[in-house]
Amino acid sequence: MATILVKSGGEAAMPEWQRHFAEFAPGLAVHWWDDAAVAPERVDFVLVWDPEPGRIAALPNLKVIFGTGAGVDFITADPELPRHLPLMRMATAGATQRMGEFVCWAALSLLKDARRIAINQAAARWNYFEPEFTAGETPVGIMGLGNMGSRAAAMLQGLGFPVRGWSRTRKALPGVTCFAGEAEFDAFLAETRILVCLLPATAETRGILAAPLLAKLPKGAGLVNVGRGSHQKIEDIIAALDAGQLCGAVLDVFEQEPLPADHAAWAHPKVMVTPHLASLPSRRERAQYVAQAIADFEAGRPLANLYDHARGY
Amino acid sequence: MATILVKSGGEAAMPEWQRHFAEFAPGLAVHWWDDAAVAPERVDFVLVWDPEPGRIAALPNLKVIFGTGAGVDFITADPELPRHLPLMRMATAGATQRMGEFVCWAALSLLKDARRIAINQAAARWNYFEPEFTAGETPVGIMGLGNMGSRAAAMLQGLGFPVRGWSRTRKALPGVTCFAGEAEFDAFLAETRILVCLLPATAETRGILAAPLLAKLPKGAGLVNVGRGSHQKIEDIIAALDAGQLCGAVLDVFEQEPLPADHAAWAHPKVMVTPHLASLPSRRERAQYVAQAIADFEAGRPLANLYDHARGY
Ligand SMILES: NC(=O)c1ccc[n+]([C@@H]2O[C@H](COP(=O)([O-])OP(=O)(O)OC[C@H]3O[C@@H](n4cnc5c(N)ncnc54)[C@H](OP(=O)(O)O)[C@@H]3O)[C@@H](O)[C@H]2O)c1
Ligand SMILES: NC(=O)c1ccc[n+]([C@@H]2O[C@H](COP(=O)([O-])OP(=O)(O)OC[C@H]3O[C@@H](n4cnc5c(N)ncnc54)[C@H](OP(=O)(O)O)[C@@H]3O)[C@@H](O)[C@H]2O)c1
Repeated sequence: MATILVKSGGEAAMPEWQRHFAEFAPGLAVHWWDDAAVAPERVDFVLVWDPEPGRIAALPNLKVIFGTGAGVDFITADPELPRHLPLMRMATAGATQRMGEFVCWAALSLLKDARRIAINQAAARWNYFEPEFTAGETPVGIMGLGNMGSRAAAMLQGLGFPVRGWSRTRKALPGVTCFAGEAEFDAFLAETRILVCLLPATAETRGILAAPLLAKLPKGAGLVNVGRGSHQKIEDIIAALDAGQLCGAVLDVFEQEPLPADHAAWAHPKVMVTPHLASLPSRRERAQYVAQAIADFEAGRPLANLYDHARGY
Repeated sequence: MATILVKSGGEAAMPEWQRHFAEFAPGLAVHWWDDAAVAPERVDFVLVWDPEPGRIAALPNLKVIFGTGAGVDFITADPELPRHLPLMRMATAGATQRMGEFVCWAALSLLKDARRIAINQAAARWNYFEPEFTAGETPVGIMGLGNMGSRAAAMLQGLGFPVRGWSRTRKALPGVTCFAGEAEFDAFLAETRILVCLLPATAETRGILAAPLLAKLPKGAGLVNVGRGSHQKIEDIIAALDAGQLCGAVLDVFEQEPLPADHAAWAHPKVMVTPHLASLPSRRERAQYVAQAIADFEAGRPLANLYDHARGY
């Protein structure tokens, strides 16, 4: 009987994980990450978000590492991570759908100036104003056209937004004006009125949402960061908002999470802060996804959505 | 030379109206509603929102009344309104698109609990939570499948929401489960998880968003009112929110507008108040629409989107 250790949602979430795995992988023994009763050599699989460095390396018979999210940067940060083992990212249909919904909500919130509406409501102030543009006049540019970005691109088009996209290798997506690589980055930015970051956290993408990039957007553009906190220099974003170069920002991720209570972003009149909730599939859906992957692995079928150490995502 | 009187946006908006009409109807004389220099018998057309009762009847040579919005209830409220004259509603493509965007934003705001996110932001509180459902699990029901409702139905489907609709006469819209008339109203409500009101204000629809209707929705449904304030009994809505029968409401319209500063809706943790801004096309777009209609009228072509006094919308 195979064994999986789970570190996601704390020990309190274990009964729920066990219930869901019982449904989808009845033979699997499901234990909490710190369960002292499980000998390290018995562990076949782990499902984790931010493992303590060295802990995974101490499991001698581990076969596959499952990340609990689409980004596995919190796992690859472990310097002792066994790089020969398959590391699988979470890429469920539900997670992708939720991200698409969040990106559409964020883009519409910038289009309608929902932050201003919320501030007016807090002051009980009936302040009628007319948002200037419709979606059709507001090209959205998506950085990162992977599982998440490509679904968001399709959903945004259904709302009437013209969509542009940028990735490392060239993509062909229905209706999307696609740009690739550094050479086409400035052209991508030049006509993007709402910029959405859906990049993975890599050495190349670190700090990309900073003053040089922001200056290349049309004046008054909006920003949505649903990638990682390490992508953004938040002081540069706030400076661009204050200067009018940006009209607003929806930030779901931060270098330091939770965002400290005294951080300027919370009260900024042009920033919407959301607590890293853009997209997380339900535990049931994640258990189903991992159960299927384990079945594939045990039958010798190839695994999808594997992390590539050379690319860094 | 034909003459139009305009009452929309106040006298201060006249230079803008005149500029736009000069572009689209160069021959038209465009005057402010209260311009004493214009003799009543010279007036051919009016473009108005809420005319003082009796004022329109005092224009002996008036040919067409143009409403500045999609609903003309603020015009038909005039007991002396000349009912033999064509009364045309505003139905520009831009207004319909803006309404679709607003409805999608409101539905996503309920799905993601944006009100809770905004309240947490105001308190600088990093309060991670997982919205339970995706759009695919959240049927949206639209009351009113006219210009506005039918476009919103198409846009919501692009986000993954199953869409149901209800109208007086039966409609056939791609992908939409359509219900008609009172006989099918309860069936329409029974599986609607987000209810959107896009009805006109008529004798039949007055006060429809009240306790009896709310009790027929599944427990924990959301409500979006972008119709008219007269559709809703706001005390019933607040009671349903407090009882958990509704999970949240986005209200763009109110019986009394501006909503008084001491009204309970402003501070309610489950109500998003927006100041009747769901959909208003730009003045330029409205001038273009009216100019085209005047050209049609003068050429003897039929006018579209006429108010029907018998139906009441
Ligand atoms: N906020 C949240 O709740 C949340 C939830 C899920 C995911 N995320 C973030 O979203 C990211 C993307 O997820 P995903 O599943 O869509 O990942 P993915 O399928 O791996 O796609 C990544 C995309 O980024 C592009 N990319 C990578 N490095 C690049 C570079 N240097 N320059 C240009 N493009 C580059 C890739 O280009 P190629 O197509 O050429 O490979 C690909 O299109 C995750 O890594 C995570 O950071 C956040
Ligand atoms: N908040 C805002 O900013 C804003 C902006 C624009 C409009 N609005 C509101 O939206 C309303 C709709 O605009 P529209 O241009 O879509 O109007 P429309 O084209 O006249 O459509 C009205 C729809 O309501 C249905 N309806 C009317 N009475 C009904 C009844 N008693 N029972 C069931 N269905 C009924 C009609 O059914 P049939 O199809 O069978 O005729 C039609 O489908 C306006 O009247 C206004 O109140 C609000």
